[in-house]
Amino acid sequence: MGPVWHCQGVPPPVRTQPADQRSVRSHNLALALGEVAGAASPVSRADIATATGMTRATASSLVETLLAAGMVTELAPRTGPQGGRPATGLTLSGDGPAALGLEINVDYIAACVLRLTGTLQHRETVERDKAGGDPIASAAMLGRLAARVVAAAEADGLRLAGAALAVPGLVDGGGVLRLAPNLGWRDVDFHELVQRQPALADLLLTVDNEANLAALAELATAPQDGSFLHVSGEIGIGAGIVVDGALYRGRHGWSGELGHVSIHPSGPKCSCGARGCLEQYAGQNAILRAAGLQPARGTSAGGDGALARLVHEAGRGNTQVLNALARASVALGVAVSTALNLLDVDHVVLGGIYAPLFPWIAPEVERQIRRRVLFSQWDPPTVRRSALGADAAVVGAARSVLQGVLGDPGAYLP
Amino acid sequence: MGPVWHCQGVPPPVRTQPADQRSVRSHNLALALGEVAGAASPVSRADIATATGMTRATASSLVETLLAAGMVTELAPRTGPQGGRPATGLTLSGDGPAALGLEINVDYIAACVLRLTGTLQHRETVERDKAGGDPIASAAMLGRLAARVVAAAEADGLRLAGAALAVPGLVDGGGVLRLAPNLGWRDVDFHELVQRQPALADLLLTVDNEANLAALAELATAPQDGSFLHVSGEIGIGAGIVVDGALYRGRHGWSGELGHVSIHPSGPKCSCGARGCLEQYAGQNAILRAAGLQPARGTSAGGDGALARLVHEAGRGNTQVLNALARASVALGVAVSTALNLLDVDHVVLGGIYAPLFPWIAPEVERQIRRRVLFSQWDPPTVRRSALGADAAVVGAARSVLQGVLGDPGAYLP
Repeated sequence: MGPVWHCQGVPPPVRTQPADQRSVRSHNLALALGEVAGAASPVSRADIATATGMTRATASSLVETLLAAGMVTELAPRTGPQGGRPATGLTLSGDGPAALGLEINVDYIAACVLRLTGTLQHRETVERDKAGGDPIASAAMLGRLAARVVAAAEADGLRLAGAALAVPGLVDGGGVLRLAPNLGWRDVDFHELVQRQPALADLLLTVDNEANLAALAELATAPQDGSFLHVSGEIGIGAGIVVDGALYRGRHGWSGELGHVSIHPSGPKCSCGARGCLEQYAGQNAILRAAGLQPARGTSAGGDGALARLVHEAGRGNTQVLNALARASVALGVAVSTALNLLDVDHVVLGGIYAPLFPWIAPEVERQIRRRVLFSQWDPPTVRRSALGADAAVVGAARSVLQGVLGDPGAYLP
Repeated sequence: MGPVWHCQGVPPPVRTQPADQRSVRSHNLALALGEVAGAASPVSRADIATATGMTRATASSLVETLLAAGMVTELAPRTGPQGGRPATGLTLSGDGPAALGLEINVDYIAACVLRLTGTLQHRETVERDKAGGDPIASAAMLGRLAARVVAAAEADGLRLAGAALAVPGLVDGGGVLRLAPNLGWRDVDFHELVQRQPALADLLLTVDNEANLAALAELATAPQDGSFLHVSGEIGIGAGIVVDGALYRGRHGWSGELGHVSIHPSGPKCSCGARGCLEQYAGQNAILRAAGLQPARGTSAGGDGALARLVHEAGRGNTQVLNALARASVALGVAVSTALNLLDVDHVVLGGIYAPLFPWIAPEVERQIRRRVLFSQWDPPTVRRSALGADAAVVGAARSVLQGVLGDPGAYLP
């Protein structure tokens, strides 16, 4: 298979004399690594040459560089079905540059390490009280958590290529969190705050919206389903939009604010200042209040937090809880239908708290979609449960670092 | 300036030996024509060579082909400010392949011709009664209108490169109108119906959603404002989404169904079958009903149709009309804010009936945006009036044909 590329404008010129040999080699290294990463089964040097239009000698030389950098590994030679000269198979190496994912959310903090192959090597989550954490204290808490995870990765012999931080709000290009309504934070320079932590001082760092990163993680679990809306249900609600295998970010990376889709223009007051936003009907605390449960810290479905109580009570048929979930599902279905009418994607993936609550949420969301989405008569969008749930954002953060390595391996050579 | 290209994936391989000389020449013809079309002032052969990385000889040979095809024209040589050898300036030629735009909307039919330079050469609109037109009769009516416009273009010595038809509904890849709720039409093969018209039988034809095409027309009028939502207000309401200079179409081209954004989930019944959609608050007939005016044919603000009456009554301060417009503006503002929270674009362009109604609609839309769009505090989206109004879709249809010529001029050589 040739390289997949989507261009929205005029393609680049054909050059007979490359202007810059080094940039051409970087570019070709990325092509070769992309062939290995994108293949369903091990590929040979000849496969890479064929798929990219390089000479066999160029492909072999690039593969040597990638082998030396620990980015690819070579399986034992096997003789083909027709006999003849045995080809060795190349795959991504789990010992290559690894990635650190970080997350600060309203009621928890998380860190994880992914190997270059995408294998989740370490993950830690710490629940916390929103009230107990200003940005400086939160960054310090994250620094301590990250120190443990980084030490564990180093003990496994992994070298970190960089880190990415997921936060629940609007982030600008410089890593400043402009607004996180559910934390009451504004204009917090997380890029600077996080790099001040000793365990993180020397790492390349990016900061992005948690819903965007969660969608990246979901895309990696099912790359064949390339057009979807990934809904991250937490205390706030965000969405990541993926179209034809690429994240739709909008102009500033501020797309997908599903939590602020209007349900009733004069409904309850929202943390953003407006009225009747989806979060006030289907956010975690809105559901807990309607269910007669105390909004409290703790989003782990397996723990003893608020979400676990909700799942438990729904499971035993508590009527007030079921009514609260029904009300939330209608609102979520209306908002998701609006998003589908605007965005035209194939699937809806329910993540965050909606993953454990899926059985009580999904049927009504599907019903609203059938009723409200104009195109649902021809190509009805499907609704499915996120495989990663609340882990999606932190895993997606690490995924975004791996994307950087795969996109420009030359920048990560030892 | 080099060619602008936006890639979302791995870029194409560098080839030292082009696999197919003909495709390379087509590609380079498009690059050369793109340099001429994209420049703010006339460019020389040397400018083209510099910008694209071609040799001067290649650029000159491509320019000769484009001159012979009538796609570019050469201005009289002028000596540069430093004296020396005079350079000739190249611009797009108005005598090159022209484009036919067609539109079937709920209450009118339109056709236009654009020269390759984008100049509007002919335009005709015929109002019609929705009740009087099934798809076959509508296509026949369009065929007669198109015959007049095509004859006028031929009398001017123009050669048509192709035609595009704008329709108010969901169109599939084969030119079948899947659903037009406000016409009650389903599964109408407009590609086949239109090509059955004698005046149109020999023309390349594409069929697309009117709101998508209207956004293309708007983009051409202000290419520097590359990220916006263009709202086409008619009896139905559609939107075209442009991000970084490219139309966001979604998976099937069905994005931007702003008219079916939910305003009140249990509001009035919509033509689509759902309840509380924006069209029931801010569509032309909804406004007319609330204003106590008879929904009637006629969307031309200068004519004596329903819209003209609305504009006239608003202008003289008719309270019921002003209240109807105020109610419509709140709903439109809520829906547009939802779209901005999901899409993250910089501007909102109010088109169709909202262009003549702009003074009574825009202030409330702006107020809702300030209140409801999360990012409006840092980079507040602006609201402006469409320059083209009700002509946008038919002009955009012709624009889409010109895009095809500019994207692959080799396919349109005489």
